[in-house]
Amino acid sequence: MLEQALYHKPETEYCYPISENTIAMRLRASKTDVLQVDVVYGGKYDFYEKRQRARMRLSYTDRLYNYFTAELTLSDVRLVYVFELKEGDRICYFSEDGLTEKYDYHFNFYNAFQFAYINAADVHRQVEWMKNARFYQIFIDRFARGNFDKDDRYINLEWGTVPGPKSYAGGDLRGVTENLGYIAGLGANAIYLTPFFRSVSNHKYDIEDYFTVDGMFGDEEDIRKLVTSAHERGMRVVMDAVFNHVSARCRQFADVAEKGKNSPYFDWFIIHGDKIDREKVNYECFASCDYMPKWNTSNEAVQEYLIGVGLYWLQKYDIDGWRLDVSDEVSHAFWRKFRDAVKKIKPECAIIGENWHDANAYLKGDQYDSIMNYAFTKACLDFFVLKSADAKAFAEKLNALLMRNTDTVNCMMLNLLDSHDTHRFLTEAGGDVRKLESALAVLYLFVGVPCIYYGTEIGMEGGYDPDCRRTMDWEKARKGSSLTQLVRALAGLKERRKCLHRNEFRAYAEGEAFVMERGELRLVVNGGETPLPLRKNICTNAEGRLRSFEFMIEEI
Amino acid sequence: MLEQALYHKPETEYCYPISENTIAMRLRASKTDVLQVDVVYGGKYDFYEKRQRARMRLSYTDRLYNYFTAELTLSDVRLVYVFELKEGDRICYFSEDGLTEKYDYHFNFYNAFQFAYINAADVHRQVEWMKNARFYQIFIDRFARGNFDKDDRYINLEWGTVPGPKSYAGGDLRGVTENLGYIAGLGANAIYLTPFFRSVSNHKYDIEDYFTVDGMFGDEEDIRKLVTSAHERGMRVVMDAVFNHVSARCRQFADVAEKGKNSPYFDWFIIHGDKIDREKVNYECFASCDYMPKWNTSNEAVQEYLIGVGLYWLQKYDIDGWRLDVSDEVSHAFWRKFRDAVKKIKPECAIIGENWHDANAYLKGDQYDSIMNYAFTKACLDFFVLKSADAKAFAEKLNALLMRNTDTVNCMMLNLLDSHDTHRFLTEAGGDVRKLESALAVLYLFVGVPCIYYGTEIGMEGGYDPDCRRTMDWEKARKGSSLTQLVRALAGLKERRKCLHRNEFRAYAEGEAFVMERGELRLVVNGGETPLPLRKNICTNAEGRLRSFEFMIEEI
Repeated sequence: MLEQALYHKPETEYCYPISENTIAMRLRASKTDVLQVDVVYGGKYDFYEKRQRARMRLSYTDRLYNYFTAELTLSDVRLVYVFELKEGDRICYFSEDGLTEKYDYHFNFYNAFQFAYINAADVHRQVEWMKNARFYQIFIDRFARGNFDKDDRYINLEWGTVPGPKSYAGGDLRGVTENLGYIAGLGANAIYLTPFFRSVSNHKYDIEDYFTVDGMFGDEEDIRKLVTSAHERGMRVVMDAVFNHVSARCRQFADVAEKGKNSPYFDWFIIHGDKIDREKVNYECFASCDYMPKWNTSNEAVQEYLIGVGLYWLQKYDIDGWRLDVSDEVSHAFWRKFRDAVKKIKPECAIIGENWHDANAYLKGDQYDSIMNYAFTKACLDFFVLKSADAKAFAEKLNALLMRNTDTVNCMMLNLLDSHDTHRFLTEAGGDVRKLESALAVLYLFVGVPCIYYGTEIGMEGGYDPDCRRTMDWEKARKGSSLTQLVRALAGLKERRKCLHRNEFRAYAEGEAFVMERGELRLVVNGGETPLPLRKNICTNAEGRLRSFEFMIEEI
Repeated sequence: MLEQALYHKPETEYCYPISENTIAMRLRASKTDVLQVDVVYGGKYDFYEKRQRARMRLSYTDRLYNYFTAELTLSDVRLVYVFELKEGDRICYFSEDGLTEKYDYHFNFYNAFQFAYINAADVHRQVEWMKNARFYQIFIDRFARGNFDKDDRYINLEWGTVPGPKSYAGGDLRGVTENLGYIAGLGANAIYLTPFFRSVSNHKYDIEDYFTVDGMFGDEEDIRKLVTSAHERGMRVVMDAVFNHVSARCRQFADVAEKGKNSPYFDWFIIHGDKIDREKVNYECFASCDYMPKWNTSNEAVQEYLIGVGLYWLQKYDIDGWRLDVSDEVSHAFWRKFRDAVKKIKPECAIIGENWHDANAYLKGDQYDSIMNYAFTKACLDFFVLKSADAKAFAEKLNALLMRNTDTVNCMMLNLLDSHDTHRFLTEAGGDVRKLESALAVLYLFVGVPCIYYGTEIGMEGGYDPDCRRTMDWEKARKGSSLTQLVRALAGLKERRKCLHRNEFRAYAEGEAFVMERGELRLVVNGGETPLPLRKNICTNAEGRLRSFEFMIEEI
């Protein structure tokens, strides 16, 4: 047995409660070992006398490891346990003391694993509607102009032409509301809106006033109509909380710029010195953008102010979630308070961080519910575009990704192929629509919540910002295409097939084919050059045979 | 290279901030690999252009793994990094994508490791006085009777005789205060008092009223005098917060017993049904003690009430810490709020949990500062008593223990050989005082805070509760012994040698000898049967030669 590969740690994604009396359990072992694994468990105060055991299933496999899982329903929620590993005739025990030939249950209070008590307050609750969510992300200035007269003197980009960093195309909130039917027609039932707060930019991530809708996009009445209309259609609305930084034009920063240390807001920012020096940029800011000073989210007054923002839009308009911009640079202390405040008002409000990297430290149930899953994006790029992962490596990567966090989190992950912050996937794929289609099949069938970026359904292209923020091609959209139909079909599967709402999952390679099984559904993507037979299926982008990077979904 | 052994995870004990601009870093690798490890790091927004590197040191070794460490002082606290591992001529990279032959820095925003930003609020601050603390734990009823007349009708145990579970020996708070000089004489500068709140029991872990000092032990004036006297001597006082459960006699439980669901306190407990059934014990309680119902610490009103208790004694008497009883069964949500409230009033108030097992989930800086280190206790038992660990295994266990948590936590760990909840160490060791002495040398020299249980210094014995709670033998104490002198000498070393206040540490075996190096000090314990030469030393319990389980401390 390769001892060094064994891993387990209580109160992590390896042992966590999914309800007041149910614990999910994982054990990692080397892929090279053939093991039979039991978890021997009992109550903290009578483990020695009363022990039960449960066989663990080999549920996930990545490049190096096998992952065994079990779910334990407990009568005594003060859980104590050790693992019994059987390799051929040899039996070993894995406890806090590591791997041993014998385990002395007399000393369990010193060295067994334990999950001391399932307290209700510590259970990370699934946001129920996220199980069946199909997201559509909208960059407001570029999506649609509302059908009404407005002061359009700020518009400097002709719809349909290529945007620059400072282009204003005139998209607005009424444009979104008027097209909710179109979005719903794609099978989407949730929208994620980039910011609409007062700001001079087209993207509005440099917010001047969190309590005002920017005039370019509309007013609060437009927000009310948008959310109400969406809710009437059974659609959810997630807004963008930019709490890492703010515009240098905001009143608090302006006050500090004027009064230095005498401003009550001096400690709201992180300033190196007694006053702001705009030349030297002696204050922390987002990236190297001196016009976006960073909030000091360690400061309690700032915490209160920004939580106030979160609650204002939640309470006034009953929104369904907050997407948290640059959330990885904001203090954990802040997110804990934010979650407490938000969940107290609406437990079903989804909290989705923008962390590009492993965000496990934020996903333990006390901060976010999920993140924008850019690691999934990268895995798809590796397989479909960069060719740095073949079918086997792609399957192993997806397995590994699911082992980063709890299943609770996995089922709420906002999976995406691209966004306003990346190249469009189709452009990465050199315009190869079949690749986009097959990647969409992976997206909609993977564990978690699919999110497509506006225009994906009509094959819009674009390189890095601002090119990925082109204006929506409504002519093409109204016409539709096989791609549009595919998005609709995949969203329909996600909606109807309950197996896609749970965490059941198996991914592996069969020769050069990538295979993903979810309950009764099996997705096959040909990752090689040799065509494969096209079997009876319920959804495909192939004809006759399954060529390179074409997919089919079949019923098992 | 044994890939399966490699481990690193940001925002855990493998990568954590120790100040606003310093990050401590660890990487785990197989002990079987000879590696040179660099961490290649830079700022999140210019990592591709500007990269630095730091060589990592091989600092810890346990049974299976080597642990490399580095401390990085950052100008940009938005840290991005990968590890470069050199094995002979082969160079590999370790990132979020695992071990790879090449690393493409273009994609770092997807798959490098990162610590996105050091926010001040997330830095776990060292409680400064803990670095140099030498604790003395007191079980009040058994330590000393104050020199005054009191109503002693409750006393049913003659001092010096063996206690039963319901014995009252008459020890009290004034007894503690009057003997602070004695305690200080042992080199201790901190006391941990078991509870003194109103309760019918001798241990008072079943509290009836958190705001009243139990009459058996004294009154609030006695608390004031105790803390004031201790502070005058430069001694710290840590009290016992029993927040997991309460006495069934408390007014809240009594109210629920009377009114059932109509009681405002119904949700303060965890009751299965509409009313309390004392026969069936249909409510959650501590262990299987029906007279100690468990608080529902997920309930916000309970949280507020108990935090009020914590703040009352802190604010009124300026105590220096809370030891948290059965803290592992209390909700994380509660401990986070408790910490926030306590640290706001007194950042130097130490928060010490009673978790017998790996408590990493509670020790991330948002809950406790440290725990009672029973895993250290077990390692000492394994080596000195059970013989299940030889010198090598003991050294490896201590290395492994330090790798469970951050160095910040390690330096605050309350290390102990025994307590009111275990057999006394000397009894475990079959009365072999040399073993106790050598274990004490390990205790005082190990990373963290030594804590001895009253009477250890005079070789008091005792089996499991109530036997470990015998009355203090003051005759023996006043006489003193070589054991007493040793405790004093070891405490003196801890006080004077700054190397013992830091986390520098090396432990290994040299033949059958256990060796622990801390800065300029080296402790040697003979773990074998063959005597070893006794070298020039500054502290020892050996004469002529170092016999089995004797120790010496020498200067390197």
